[in-house]
Amino acid sequence: MGKSSFGNIFTVTTWGESHGRALGAVIDGCPAGLPLQEEDIQEFLDRRKPGQSRFTTARKEGDLAEILSGVFEGKTTGTPISVIVQNTDQRSRDYGNIALSYRPGHADYTFDQKYGIRDYRGGGRSSGRETIGRTIAGAIASKLLKELGIVFCTYTKSIGPVSIKELNPEEITRNALYMPDALAAKEAGAYLETCMNKGDSAGGIIECRITGVPSGLGDPVFGKLDAILSHAVMSIGAVKAVEIGDGIRTAGLNGSTDNDGFCMQNGAVQKTSNHAGGIMGGISDGSEIILRAAVKPTPSISQPQKTVSSAGENITLEIHGRHDPVIVPRAVVVVESMCAITLADALMANMSARMDRIKDFYSSLHKNI
Amino acid sequence: MGKSSFGNIFTVTTWGESHGRALGAVIDGCPAGLPLQEEDIQEFLDRRKPGQSRFTTARKEGDLAEILSGVFEGKTTGTPISVIVQNTDQRSRDYGNIALSYRPGHADYTFDQKYGIRDYRGGGRSSGRETIGRTIAGAIASKLLKELGIVFCTYTKSIGPVSIKELNPEEITRNALYMPDALAAKEAGAYLETCMNKGDSAGGIIECRITGVPSGLGDPVFGKLDAILSHAVMSIGAVKAVEIGDGIRTAGLNGSTDNDGFCMQNGAVQKTSNHAGGIMGGISDGSEIILRAAVKPTPSISQPQKTVSSAGENITLEIHGRHDPVIVPRAVVVVESMCAITLADALMANMSARMDRIKDFYSSLHKNI
Amino acid sequence: MGKSSFGNIFTVTTWGESHGRALGAVIDGCPAGLPLQEEDIQEFLDRRKPGQSRFTTARKEGDLAEILSGVFEGKTTGTPISVIVQNTDQRSRDYGNIALSYRPGHADYTFDQKYGIRDYRGGGRSSGRETIGRTIAGAIASKLLKELGIVFCTYTKSIGPVSIKELNPEEITRNALYMPDALAAKEAGAYLETCMNKGDSAGGIIECRITGVPSGLGDPVFGKLDAILSHAVMSIGAVKAVEIGDGIRTAGLNGSTDNDGFCMQNGAVQKTSNHAGGIMGGISDGSEIILRAAVKPTPSISQPQKTVSSAGENITLEIHGRHDPVIVPRAVVVVESMCAITLADALMANMSARMDRIKDFYSSLHKNI
Amino acid sequence: MGKSSFGNIFTVTTWGESHGRALGAVIDGCPAGLPLQEEDIQEFLDRRKPGQSRFTTARKEGDLAEILSGVFEGKTTGTPISVIVQNTDQRSRDYGNIALSYRPGHADYTFDQKYGIRDYRGGGRSSGRETIGRTIAGAIASKLLKELGIVFCTYTKSIGPVSIKELNPEEITRNALYMPDALAAKEAGAYLETCMNKGDSAGGIIECRITGVPSGLGDPVFGKLDAILSHAVMSIGAVKAVEIGDGIRTAGLNGSTDNDGFCMQNGAVQKTSNHAGGIMGGISDGSEIILRAAVKPTPSISQPQKTVSSAGENITLEIHGRHDPVIVPRAVVVVESMCAITLADALMANMSARMDRIKDFYSSLHKNI
Repeated sequence: MGKSSFGNIFTVTTWGESHGRALGAVIDGCPAGLPLQEEDIQEFLDRRKPGQSRFTTARKEGDLAEILSGVFEGKTTGTPISVIVQNTDQRSRDYGNIALSYRPGHADYTFDQKYGIRDYRGGGRSSGRETIGRTIAGAIASKLLKELGIVFCTYTKSIGPVSIKELNPEEITRNALYMPDALAAKEAGAYLETCMNKGDSAGGIIECRITGVPSGLGDPVFGKLDAILSHAVMSIGAVKAVEIGDGIRTAGLNGSTDNDGFCMQNGAVQKTSNHAGGIMGGISDGSEIILRAAVKPTPSISQPQKTVSSAGENITLEIHGRHDPVIVPRAVVVVESMCAITLADALMANMSARMDRIKDFYSSLHKNI
Repeated sequence: MGKSSFGNIFTVTTWGESHGRALGAVIDGCPAGLPLQEEDIQEFLDRRKPGQSRFTTARKEGDLAEILSGVFEGKTTGTPISVIVQNTDQRSRDYGNIALSYRPGHADYTFDQKYGIRDYRGGGRSSGRETIGRTIAGAIASKLLKELGIVFCTYTKSIGPVSIKELNPEEITRNALYMPDALAAKEAGAYLETCMNKGDSAGGIIECRITGVPSGLGDPVFGKLDAILSHAVMSIGAVKAVEIGDGIRTAGLNGSTDNDGFCMQNGAVQKTSNHAGGIMGGISDGSEIILRAAVKPTPSISQPQKTVSSAGENITLEIHGRHDPVIVPRAVVVVESMCAITLADALMANMSARMDRIKDFYSSLHKNI
Repeated sequence: MGKSSFGNIFTVTTWGESHGRALGAVIDGCPAGLPLQEEDIQEFLDRRKPGQSRFTTARKEGDLAEILSGVFEGKTTGTPISVIVQNTDQRSRDYGNIALSYRPGHADYTFDQKYGIRDYRGGGRSSGRETIGRTIAGAIASKLLKELGIVFCTYTKSIGPVSIKELNPEEITRNALYMPDALAAKEAGAYLETCMNKGDSAGGIIECRITGVPSGLGDPVFGKLDAILSHAVMSIGAVKAVEIGDGIRTAGLNGSTDNDGFCMQNGAVQKTSNHAGGIMGGISDGSEIILRAAVKPTPSISQPQKTVSSAGENITLEIHGRHDPVIVPRAVVVVESMCAITLADALMANMSARMDRIKDFYSSLHKNI
Repeated sequence: MGKSSFGNIFTVTTWGESHGRALGAVIDGCPAGLPLQEEDIQEFLDRRKPGQSRFTTARKEGDLAEILSGVFEGKTTGTPISVIVQNTDQRSRDYGNIALSYRPGHADYTFDQKYGIRDYRGGGRSSGRETIGRTIAGAIASKLLKELGIVFCTYTKSIGPVSIKELNPEEITRNALYMPDALAAKEAGAYLETCMNKGDSAGGIIECRITGVPSGLGDPVFGKLDAILSHAVMSIGAVKAVEIGDGIRTAGLNGSTDNDGFCMQNGAVQKTSNHAGGIMGGISDGSEIILRAAVKPTPSISQPQKTVSSAGENITLEIHGRHDPVIVPRAVVVVESMCAITLADALMANMSARMDRIKDFYSSLHKNI
């Protein structure tokens, strides 16, 4: 499979650079008959759009989604869905000085090492704009999952030293930082102002909670649901750690405090806790899936930094132009998108896990003819 | 690709259950001409073998590797390498009571939900014995990497509340916990004794450092080297978090403290720090790769636990028989193996990244004929 | 995916060389709950076994299948099924002279060119024994398909100049050539005697007819069912052409004679002919799938042949020892196996093609809990 | 891998329907540094363009290729190359009557069976326009191969009963049928006129010859070069048979007449014949690769045909509008494209087949730093 593709049945292939003509995604393996409109995708793209607050870049791009194939009369047809977003505001002059130097914290150096050629007008393929393709596919996957009752709640859990203290889902979209805690959002905002005044930036943590996931998704070994989710989320630029359920904390727990017990409730098996984050042995257990991603600070800062030029000279670099002091809020929808793509794929793969269900499936078709 | 396979060019397919006749792995895409003997694999298997200390199960299996194909006169031939380990000491009587109940912290419940059938004699495919296949492949990948000067240093960083304070590579194999710090190993041992006395277990953190990795490995988007490493390591049972470089700590840093600067040293580009853990924009930068995995406590504990039977009754379960109070030490080689497999695959994939190198490669062949 | 693997959901990975310790296959993605015993596999292996008539090699190997994993209490568990066949009669002395020369019609030369090393004791990975792994997987796939009412009729259509004139399914297993026409089998036997007397060999054509295939299998573009079947069958050593339906004959037809009309019959859509061989636009149409494979003559002949030694000298080679004068009869089960593997995979992939069916599938599961 | 993707390292993903807004392809894994312009792609697209002679549809679309990503300053950058072709002349009114009926020889019926929804304005994803994506990728693959000295000669071998008698490469582009024999082209033209007068169509055979292919491409089992080529070519709509080398004729040959001998010539190994078509045991042998594809007659004919409506009534269908009486000439570049894509992928995969070459590769890089 191509390196710019993800998924086995429900797959996404993304393309495009920050300063090229356009970016886009091809979603293949989406089932036929899913209602889909450009608005569904636009809603997701708008969540990652720049220029929405004083903490995001002023670059005012429309980032308008156009569906080019795979949808007919408002429904998917089972064929590849190609979606394109034009690059309307390229402003490559902002990036002039980076053409000749390796920016710390960016992929400039490694790109040159690997390919020997680099689109020096901007981040190119390694730009944050690359996530447009992921978000397009995430919007489609989410639409599919919603039809099955699977719902996401994704938000900023912390920015720098400021963590949420409550989880109020309604609050998430009320503040520019996508935090489910108004007070924390206010404090984080103040912290970011401080960073900006110093020409510096901040990192943070994104948490994704998914409810309504049927048990049985994922596979016992390399295809563990948590492993695929980790692949999906760690492939987002700037993510440096991924946790499932209690995550890193489990290293300090005991079996007696980490194990989730089972009990019967109204005739159904229930868990008495959810340290595991909804996945046991790589397979979803029907409870809430909980995942966290640690996002590093924006590498583009206006403070002077020591680095080298492509010509091999020690230089001091100052990156001008506006840059987001924090990536986290705009990455919330990207984390959600990658989780949605992973779940859509796992849902489809799981349909063939049992012989009795395969027989039921095909015998019901025969009756229809 | 099958769900029990991993890798794109250098691939491993594992098979086998804890109480079946045997377990094994098929390694495909290994280049021809690599010197390989059963001893190379045995050395790795011995690192995960039970019965080596009072902290590991007494189950004394030989776990002897037999190479069945792909090697001729001491060298790989380019064809699939099939390696088998017989299950000689199955002792299924130990596991009798788990046939009828869902053990907390295990995959019993989710396995039943997914497949509707379960090898109730033990953990089956979700047993820790599944890692035999990974370790076999890891031994081969490591042999390959060593030929290119790529070397691993993997160890227990913490067990429960006890973390290492120094990194002394020689110490790692001197203590049963694979800790590079003799004092910490002693403290951790004492902690584990306490856990065992309470019929409880502990978790911990494994760290893997890889040196000699050439720059250029990995791809910019979904095939990021850190994303594949996360997939690889999170697919190990009991791993609940993966970090690259500063990992979760980066969420609290600023751009000015997280960015790694560049400088010229002896005519070569060097980094002035390594917060990124050797990977920038998903591509290796030539510096040390650093990865950590958080391992949850052994779920099998002898304390009574609340759970339900397969028949849907609330029960209290006591798991008899000896179980490791901690998985971490035996998982060290498994984490190393998964990283080795990932790197071997990335090394091979990277060979076709540049047209000039493809031309050089094929023009040198032409000269040989 | 590894080069020794085939399939996307129902996958097979084969391993082993003609003169190694064993050969085998790992079948992953087989649904749980399929009744499976070693006898099911043995039955298929026996159809390709040598030593059954004067037209097959005397090499009397048991070729006994042992299931090592993935089956519990007579049913598949959803985990990888590992099956092994020991190499008991290796008789490498028969092959002594080929170690130093490139046999015409064999892969000796290309193997050396690619890998620079070769298991010179026999055909190695390119031996006909490699098909043992395919046949193992084919037996399992066939068992699965039979449960859904999909049935194969595969036979020798021609050997050298002798073609069948009738298709009598009962006759197939009554003659050593697997021809569904007793008279043609007799003539073909006489023709083979002539070839053997000259130290020569013959080729032929295998035809595979599959009934009970539901409509809808396969995908519109690169995943066309006929394209995957061609890949599957052309990957069998010695196959040099693959045809679907009227195949090569269609090149000489007109639209008016090649198009299959539709008509209503008992309220169902029927085709008025089947030139297409059961596949339209890459998707099964519910009618009989028809495929043919052209098999070249056995390359090992006892006549002297001009060739070169590995050392680069012109030599004349005489291949002693008994070799089948024709590969076709033993390849019948291999063609059937590859088609069965392909269909099993396509059946499982097709389950997620429509949103309404995905919803039905998951809503029925919810009711079960 | 998505069903609309092909290739393992050098991959293509195509998208688009005949009456949608656009069609295109994303080529991923193309090495960095390959000179590439829109003209390179246009040249290939023009070879499949309609409206070039009285034997092709009058639909005058520009079919202009636009490169949207992956190319910077005239060279590939190693990132996905997205190429788009707008659908400017959709004329959906031509196809009005097919919305309600299943056209014989088309995918209308199977598409409805699989997806339950169909873009009834035309062939949709199953239209011949789908090959635009393949041709785009083929142009890029061919550019890459040409840099390595690999050259294609692809042409119409026969149309209906008229076969070429000579192979004059210069002649191929001089006649509208792409036949390398002026006389045969004239006869075939006359034959096609007869077909058109009857409202009928014709099929034919395409032959592809590839020179300069290094030995060693392809893998011994499922990844045989001939198997992948067959998959590639059989996935083109209307192709019903694929042959390698002597193909179906080998079924009637003897070992003594089919085997290709070897001899030393100027110190190099040469073959004394090429019945195998350049591939032995699935691996290229350095000689000319020869492949043939049988193409069925255009299914759209103006003669009345018996079929059924989507509503389940027996009807007689007359397809108005102009349709090519033969697909073969326009499919020549498509066959060449699929072979080029396959070879580009195999070339890149082969680079990691030997340990000594991997070591050479990486040790030369070390020297460069």
